[in-house]
Amino acid sequence: MNVHVPPADQPHEPQVDLALSEAKKRVADATGAVPTGPRPGRRKVYEPGVIHPDIRVPFAEIAVHPSADEPPVTVYDPSGPYTDPDAQIDIHKGLAEVIAPDWRLSRGDIAPETSPREVKPEDNGHASGKHLAPAFDTSRHRVYRGVPGRPVTQLEYARAGIITPEMEYVAIRENLRRAEARDLWGASEGAQAASARGASVSPERDGESFGAELPEFVTPDFVRQEIARGRAIIPANINHREVEPMAIGRNFLVKINANIGNSAVLSSVADEVDKLVWATRWGADTVMDLSTGRNIHNIRDWIVRNSPVPIGTVPIYQALEKVGGVAEDLTWEVFRDTLIEQAEQGVDYFTIHAGVRLPFVPLTASRVTGIVSRGGSIMAKWCLAHHRESFLYEHFAEICEIMRAYDVSFSLGDGLRPGSIADANDEAQFAELRTLGELTRVAWDHGCQVMIEGPGHVPMQKIKANMDEQLKHCGEAPFYTLGPLTTDIAPGYDHITSAIGAAMIGWFGTAMLCYVTPKEHLGLPDRQDVKDGVITYKIAAHAADLAKGHPAARAWDDALSRARFEFRWEDQFNLSLDPETAREYHDETLPKEAHKTAHFCSMCGPKFCSMKISQDIREAARGQNDAGASLGPVDAEAGMREMAERFRAGGGEIEIKV
Amino acid sequence: MNVHVPPADQPHEPQVDLALSEAKKRVADATGAVPTGPRPGRRKVYEPGVIHPDIRVPFAEIAVHPSADEPPVTVYDPSGPYTDPDAQIDIHKGLAEVIAPDWRLSRGDIAPETSPREVKPEDNGHASGKHLAPAFDTSRHRVYRGVPGRPVTQLEYARAGIITPEMEYVAIRENLRRAEARDLWGASEGAQAASARGASVSPERDGESFGAELPEFVTPDFVRQEIARGRAIIPANINHREVEPMAIGRNFLVKINANIGNSAVLSSVADEVDKLVWATRWGADTVMDLSTGRNIHNIRDWIVRNSPVPIGTVPIYQALEKVGGVAEDLTWEVFRDTLIEQAEQGVDYFTIHAGVRLPFVPLTASRVTGIVSRGGSIMAKWCLAHHRESFLYEHFAEICEIMRAYDVSFSLGDGLRPGSIADANDEAQFAELRTLGELTRVAWDHGCQVMIEGPGHVPMQKIKANMDEQLKHCGEAPFYTLGPLTTDIAPGYDHITSAIGAAMIGWFGTAMLCYVTPKEHLGLPDRQDVKDGVITYKIAAHAADLAKGHPAARAWDDALSRARFEFRWEDQFNLSLDPETAREYHDETLPKEAHKTAHFCSMCGPKFCSMKISQDIREAARGQNDAGASLGPVDAEAGMREMAERFRAGGGEIEIKV
Repeated sequence: MNVHVPPADQPHEPQVDLALSEAKKRVADATGAVPTGPRPGRRKVYEPGVIHPDIRVPFAEIAVHPSADEPPVTVYDPSGPYTDPDAQIDIHKGLAEVIAPDWRLSRGDIAPETSPREVKPEDNGHASGKHLAPAFDTSRHRVYRGVPGRPVTQLEYARAGIITPEMEYVAIRENLRRAEARDLWGASEGAQAASARGASVSPERDGESFGAELPEFVTPDFVRQEIARGRAIIPANINHREVEPMAIGRNFLVKINANIGNSAVLSSVADEVDKLVWATRWGADTVMDLSTGRNIHNIRDWIVRNSPVPIGTVPIYQALEKVGGVAEDLTWEVFRDTLIEQAEQGVDYFTIHAGVRLPFVPLTASRVTGIVSRGGSIMAKWCLAHHRESFLYEHFAEICEIMRAYDVSFSLGDGLRPGSIADANDEAQFAELRTLGELTRVAWDHGCQVMIEGPGHVPMQKIKANMDEQLKHCGEAPFYTLGPLTTDIAPGYDHITSAIGAAMIGWFGTAMLCYVTPKEHLGLPDRQDVKDGVITYKIAAHAADLAKGHPAARAWDDALSRARFEFRWEDQFNLSLDPETAREYHDETLPKEAHKTAHFCSMCGPKFCSMKISQDIREAARGQNDAGASLGPVDAEAGMREMAERFRAGGGEIEIKV
Repeated sequence: MNVHVPPADQPHEPQVDLALSEAKKRVADATGAVPTGPRPGRRKVYEPGVIHPDIRVPFAEIAVHPSADEPPVTVYDPSGPYTDPDAQIDIHKGLAEVIAPDWRLSRGDIAPETSPREVKPEDNGHASGKHLAPAFDTSRHRVYRGVPGRPVTQLEYARAGIITPEMEYVAIRENLRRAEARDLWGASEGAQAASARGASVSPERDGESFGAELPEFVTPDFVRQEIARGRAIIPANINHREVEPMAIGRNFLVKINANIGNSAVLSSVADEVDKLVWATRWGADTVMDLSTGRNIHNIRDWIVRNSPVPIGTVPIYQALEKVGGVAEDLTWEVFRDTLIEQAEQGVDYFTIHAGVRLPFVPLTASRVTGIVSRGGSIMAKWCLAHHRESFLYEHFAEICEIMRAYDVSFSLGDGLRPGSIADANDEAQFAELRTLGELTRVAWDHGCQVMIEGPGHVPMQKIKANMDEQLKHCGEAPFYTLGPLTTDIAPGYDHITSAIGAAMIGWFGTAMLCYVTPKEHLGLPDRQDVKDGVITYKIAAHAADLAKGHPAARAWDDALSRARFEFRWEDQFNLSLDPETAREYHDETLPKEAHKTAHFCSMCGPKFCSMKISQDIREAARGQNDAGASLGPVDAEAGMREMAERFRAGGGEIEIKV
């Protein structure tokens, strides 16, 4: 893994300006390197568009050993250019545009902002001198804005019957190259052999989708329809043209979000850009920058310009910083200014806690853990202190207008989500959820894309009610949940307590799962925590896809299981979510290269390997099958005697000398 | 953590016999030390019996800070004397008897075995010299056996209306000292204060138990009834008197099992005894010794004599070793001899794969991963090679007679469980399950206790059918499942893929969950893997208890959540499943001692702490409440203005200077 980071002092620049070279050095120190290069066993491939031939949609392709006679497995890949060996990465320049603004400009739908907002000292918490984080060079970042009277959001285009490049991109992406794989498969002789031994590229649909309508293949028009009816969103701010479009909706693959961000106590620019790239490398589909403290404007520029995935934020955090951390001093004007600031930077979705209404606040007074959402508690405090309805609620239509102008998607925050098992599914939570449903309709009326945030801490038997209520009140707008955690007793392991709930609610219909790391409730996640959180949530999301019966999900499991059965160790590693760890664990107890081809592993040793014995049985069965006899149990008496004889004659011995 | 291990060379023994001292040194090397001493924040307490006053039932008590004014939390504790600072631990002597055999002897139900089986060279795989693992000194281990015509199993006593010491032990254990806690609670003034702020020692029952019948309190007679109808078992071989009795049944707390055991490739006596103690220290309720290879007789002695939890084995593994690893050479006689050998040592439950019948074997031929159970594949191979029905099935009644004589419980093995998502819930699996139901009735007719093993790899939407089929065919005999794993794509993280399925199936009614470690499919678990597996499964089991609405489950979560809300960091650590890790994670980012009392943490920093803001809101609400006004939303207009005023007047400022 390496990255092209320009040295702090370029040779062609005379070192006359010490202040400049010092500044550059600080930038290098502060931004550091990010992990690049392909992941083991994965090859970056691209599919072109048809309606929009300029787009090229990335996938990761995992080839298996030629002996398997199987096509490669294509998996969804949100890691961006960082895993493309041909990409030139320079985090000081940011990523290249993925979808150029030309098509919108030529239609007259958007226009360059003639007076973009200027960065103010309070945007970075009045940090200055050495306390000020290095600024990203935004000279190449042109700010656009929707032209009044013209469509700008994906929702508006979808309603108008227009298939945008983003929609086609998403359609191709969601299919995981299955059409192609199927063609390859049908053409190869290996297909028949694999089929004969139980392999199946298109396993039958045997899921329970709870009313989701997963199509066999996703077409661009299906994407359009889903967006038009508000059942999916493509979070893609017109000012974040580096984003690789992706969809969040219950009829698409379940997505995951990773949170990064510094706090007043810790973390720096370098750490946050690294975590962004690191999180997407392992599979994060979106990233929320939850930074608080100083420098958040500058840090955000670094993040957005280098992010291939949609970036979400909670603007109230920055607004609070601007008023010195005193919730009561928040005003609509400060908040509004912050929305514009972040929309121009390119943030793709905003968490807006407009459902925390004044009358709901007392409902939390008897809770075990009160209000646990930062944004929710800030707004609750504001409401109480002023004895006024939330300014987010009162100004919601204006918020919609601002967000629409850049196609910033709503993530309607669940400020009153339960923070403990005891508080799950209480009236405070559901009163807010109903309000979020009301706001969803307002936002839709303004042409805005919307998703809804969900809990939190919920015991298993109360999870489904969350999904049902959300579907009922929010018109199938995508649900985006934090876990939920299914018990409170395991700080240090809340990625696991929450993965249980996340898998379940994903199955029930949640479109995106917000990860929880092992550090939840204890501290800020470091690199290892981010990875653990992302992989744990990839597991939950994939388990949900499988259970829903997503037509593309099981092929991956089946490919890995066939590799397992056939002792193709390298294929097992490569097909796993984390090849490095799988290999490392294997090598701890069977490190020799020869063991990579061994027909057993250290768990059972050679004599006790059930897979090996099963293969003997299968061989015997195949011999039997060749003889034309059925293998069904009714014919057991007739066929098994011969089978036994063949088995013994055919070398059914299982001992392997080591 | 320390342990009393006699030095290899005792000072009072003259070193004349070099062979002896060499042997002792080898014993010390091979057995090493085991982790002892209390776990952080936990105090070992005992409750005496009433019907059987000699028994004393262990619990771990976790005290909280006096400021909380709450009773301590009592949690289930399978760690045995190892966590009791007053216990003398000497693994060369083994643990003390927990329930003496006197009551059975005085009734004439059991008698000393007059001709116990002698250890044969093949019991240890003909290991000799330096290859032979040190023998445990069994001179103090008297072997008992049931007297013909007299009851010996817990099932037989239960049917006869007799409440055994084991049953009362279990009843006390399952109540988690709630009666006492309630009394204490009712007597203290703190109770009212805690109650006023939402604390509740007996939270309302709000679970979904899917037909389980969880009583508010467990009485000894309830235990007896559950055992009498086969719905629960107490695995407690009359020759494993070191065991602290525990129950496995859907109307009791969900239990977890940890697998240990060497394989031909790795591991030693020292490692296995250490893993046993280590696994129970973190919460394993039973331990299976899955050793294969040489020396398994000797290793088993060390394990059983030092185990406070029931030990399970798979006798076919040792039988296979005795015939040189060639499945075809297995005979009923070798197997029978192995059963007696292990029953006399004190193994508490045997996995018997008697459901792998000849006609079912061809059903696995078209699977993606064939047969993945070691025992299942051995038996399948034997059936095929001989073209005969399984000798386990044909001799099942004799197996019952042997196991009954020592009260070894059946764990009817699912030799045809699915090893991949593709193979879940297929006919091979369910044909075997129906056979296990048939065998359950045979075993019950012989007076034997029975549980049923379950899968394996199962996607979420197919998990409930497993439970439903098991209940339907096996007469509510306890279900004991391995996971199930909900996806195949995450080797290295299968503790997590399986915890999702385990929590769900535990909720649906599974009585015991067999852990899966991160090394599953890759290698033998080491110490860290054992701990990760146990804690992950404690999470799954507790999440299941919560969801079922177990009346004792939520008190633990609530206590931890109150500690969290009140910034009692030490209490949060102590109440967590893994205090050391929780503390370590916290200290990584906020290491100073002062921060242990800080009203925030590094995640949000002081300004953004929602818990702190919630407390401000609660203070305001309490002031409001004192004024006599309702806090309900209908009164919002009336009350909130005053509330806001009080809030501002009362110092609602949230900034904390750091």
